[in-house]
This record gives sequence, C-alpha cells and structure tokens, in this order.
Amino acid sequence: MDLRKKIRNIPDFPKPGIMFRDITPLLACPDSFREAIKQIADQYRGRKIDAIAAAEARGFIFAAPLALELNASFVPVRKPGKLPFDTQAFHYELEYGVDTLEIHTDAFQEGEQVLLVDDLLATGGTMNACVKLIEQAGAEVVGCAFAIELSFLNGREILAPHECFSLLTYDGED
Amino acid sequence: MDLRKKIRNIPDFPKPGIMFRDITPLLACPDSFREAIKQIADQYRGRKIDAIAAAEARGFIFAAPLALELNASFVPVRKPGKLPFDTQAFHYELEYGVDTLEIHTDAFQEGEQVLLVDDLLATGGTMNACVKLIEQAGAEVVGCAFAIELSFLNGREILAPHECFSLLTYDGED
Repeated sequence: MDLRKKIRNIPDFPKPGIMFRDITPLLACPDSFREAIKQIADQYRGRKIDAIAAAEARGFIFAAPLALELNASFVPVRKPGKLPFDTQAFHYELEYGVDTLEIHTDAFQEGEQVLLVDDLLATGGTMNACVKLIEQAGAEVVGCAFAIELSFLNGREILAPHECFSLLTYDGED
Repeated sequence: MDLRKKIRNIPDFPKPGIMFRDITPLLACPDSFREAIKQIADQYRGRKIDAIAAAEARGFIFAAPLALELNASFVPVRKPGKLPFDTQAFHYELEYGVDTLEIHTDAFQEGEQVLLVDDLLATGGTMNACVKLIEQAGAEVVGCAFAIELSFLNGREILAPHECFSLLTYDGED
C-alpha cells in the first residue's frame, strides 16, 4: 500500500510558495489510516512506552489510535486555558511572537517513557516545545513520531538527540 | 469496568459554578479508553456508517479510534483557515458572538451515512453546527455520539430528531 498516494499536495497553503501536504485523503481511507498507525506503531513495539503525548489538534488524530495500539496512556498537550486541572506551561518563540503549550501537572509520573506524536515535522518548533514540556515534567522522551516530515526544513536537527521517525518524507516541494 | 470513576470532577471550570468533567484520567488509562471506544462502537456495529466526523480538538480523540474500529472514513471538522483544500462553512451563534466550522467540499459523497462524535454534549451548539454542515454537504447524519452528556442542559433537544448516544450521563452538578 503506497500511503504517499493518499497525501494530497496543495500549492500555496497556508501562504504563497508553500506546498501543503494534506492528510485528509489518508484519513478518509480506513485501510490507509490503519496502515499508517500500524507502521508507526511497528517502530516502537517491544519498547517501554508508558504514554503517547500529542499537541492539539491534528496530532490527536494519530496519537489517540497509537496510544491504543501501543497500550499506552494518551496525554493531550494543549493551548493555554483548555486543560481544566493544574497545568504547567512552556513558552516558545514562533516566527512572529510567542506561543504556549500546557500539560496537566499530573500527566506523567517521574521517569515515565513518553513517545511524542504529531502529523507533521516542519521546522520542529512545536515538537521541540512538547519535548521541553515533557522533560520539565520529569518524564523521558523516547522519540518523536510523525506522519509526514518536510526534511528540507531540518526539523530533526532542533529535536536532536531525540530519535525521530517519519512515515513519509518529502525532501522538497515536489 | 466503571468508566465513571475515570472522569475527574473539577469545580468552577471554565467559570464559576460550572462542574467540569475532565476526561484526561480516562485517556491516561488505556484499558478504560479502549473500553470507552468499544462501548460507543457497539452502538453502531452492523449499521451502515461511511464516515465519522468530529470537530477539533477533543472530538478527534474519540473519533479517530472509532473510525478505525468501525472501518469508516475519518473527517475532521475544523475552525476557519485550517483546512487546506476548498471548504464549505457553517456559521452559528454562541452565547457571545458567532463561530464558524468548516469541512472540505470533497469530504463526503452524496448520501453518505455519517456518525458525528464529540467528547461532550452540553447545550449542543457545536454538534448542531456539525449536523448542519454534514447535511449542507449532501450527506446523512446517522447519529451523534458522545463520551459525556450533561443532560440537564438539554442538548438532545436541539439535536432532535437525530439520535444521540452518550457513554456517561450527568444529570446535575454532582
């Protein structure tokens, strides 16, 4: 099954010059979506993974089935004000301005092994913020898994030495 | 397995007088999360369900595993500007102001049977907007499924005659 055929290329989104990799055709095909979850899970089977954490919103789409597949906790990482219990925050810089992500203070126990999941690895800014948040909470990052990686944006470098896995890699705008 | 024990009650969130039903302990327990998905899926097995649609962000957490469990398409319903392809929108009134939800114009084929999923049924405003969006797209709403229903807010009434199923119902603030 060629999952790449289920990704739709949309030029000039969200701004001119950007080729957006649209995952909705993959999500619309249950066999493909299931295969994507299986292939990501296959990278981590047999390893100790206590929790899968993901930032809203698209990250949840892959992380929730993966948590069930790997028998791990699902931990949502959210924008400020969304989580109802006590939270801890991590602030990070964007191209213009600052953004914040939060987790519940009781999301992890000390030393828990956490796999971070997102749909897309671009520059790595959001995932790096998730890494910091997990480490700040006393848990350990096992790795970062993505459905799609835009490798020409070098997001892996910012995430090093954490191990990254991507289901589909795009090394240019084609 | 008493799933209700996995819901944490948080008083005065997001504002004074509101008892928030926090699903994160349920999500943190893979057996409970799996059981929740199974029990929701059990309501719909054997029926024709082509697609599961859900609004961001918490809706995705239940809808993505359900789509895989019921072998249906997963269709994200999103806030404006998030979907990269051609979209259609539905505008709806909130307590203060107006909100908008969007789907891709090719999300559904004419007459497709769609199950709508969200974590919470409160007043029903967001889910009703999803219903209108699906119907506007020429698809048919099979029903609306929720993890939690705050029955004293009468959200079912606004969604009638569409069938609602809730895993856990709270009829007051206790």
